[in-house]
Amino acid sequence: MSSNTPFAPRPDEEAVENGIAFMPRFDRDGLIVAIAVDADAGDVLMVAHMDRTALARTIETGDAWFWSRSRQTLWRKGEESGNTLRVAEMRVDCDQDAILLKVRIGGDGVTCHRGYRSCFYRKVPTGAEPDPAMELAFDEAMPRVTVR
Amino acid sequence: MSSNTPFAPRPDEEAVENGIAFMPRFDRDGLIVAIAVDADAGDVLMVAHMDRTALARTIETGDAWFWSRSRQTLWRKGEESGNTLRVAEMRVDCDQDAILLKVRIGGDGVTCHRGYRSCFYRKVPTGAEPDPAMELAFDEAMPRVTVR
Repeated sequence: MSSNTPFAPRPDEEAVENGIAFMPRFDRDGLIVAIAVDADAGDVLMVAHMDRTALARTIETGDAWFWSRSRQTLWRKGEESGNTLRVAEMRVDCDQDAILLKVRIGGDGVTCHRGYRSCFYRKVPTGAEPDPAMELAFDEAMPRVTVR
Repeated sequence: MSSNTPFAPRPDEEAVENGIAFMPRFDRDGLIVAIAVDADAGDVLMVAHMDRTALARTIETGDAWFWSRSRQTLWRKGEESGNTLRVAEMRVDCDQDAILLKVRIGGDGVTCHRGYRSCFYRKVPTGAEPDPAMELAFDEAMPRVTVR
């Protein structure tokens, strides 16, 4: 495609979905969504985005790198907190616009900046029409190592 | 916010991240990312997007609805294939810009339109600098009920 990407171009759907070439699709902001799950327990820890550089660095180093949309900066997860995400396995989905990371959490076992093991510490009630007064339920069983 | 959304406005970060009001953040295309995992086995099945209507219908009916970006249409997952996703539990992440669905697959147990149980049927090699010639590895153990 261009000289600044280490990834293959996307010729057609068959190649993308049924081939062995890695052809990640970045959105118009140059980002691809990445899901991190615990490599052993399997629970979903966080969802974040990667630009080309973050994806390339994650592949090369085995540490999870992301692009922070709020700070508009590249970051290695855990570089400040120590809660790194070490990649045990990486996968890509059928149309190659989502990345799955099976990881092991470093440091004190926390992924979320709010101190929880996982960012998904609240449940959304289902079974009734939603309205602005609906209430989330905190998962009281979710480990919260540090309160930040 | 506006009268066409059943969700609460987002006053500040503290309310969004540490409160019990459901304040999903939709991107500039009006979409929020949703991750579907198997409610029992825990494996990641697919990643898709929801607009306000898809999210509201999923909450109300307990069946997973998405917004197809390629077809620009609302769709109930499995409405043609029979491979519905019945929501056992819904969660939202810290900054409320990602939805987690714990689901049970209907029909023949397939989530991916390519016939696999999960859309993440290929592994991306790590540990070396990526280049356009790098090769994905199919997960030979991934159930593929139907070849489409």
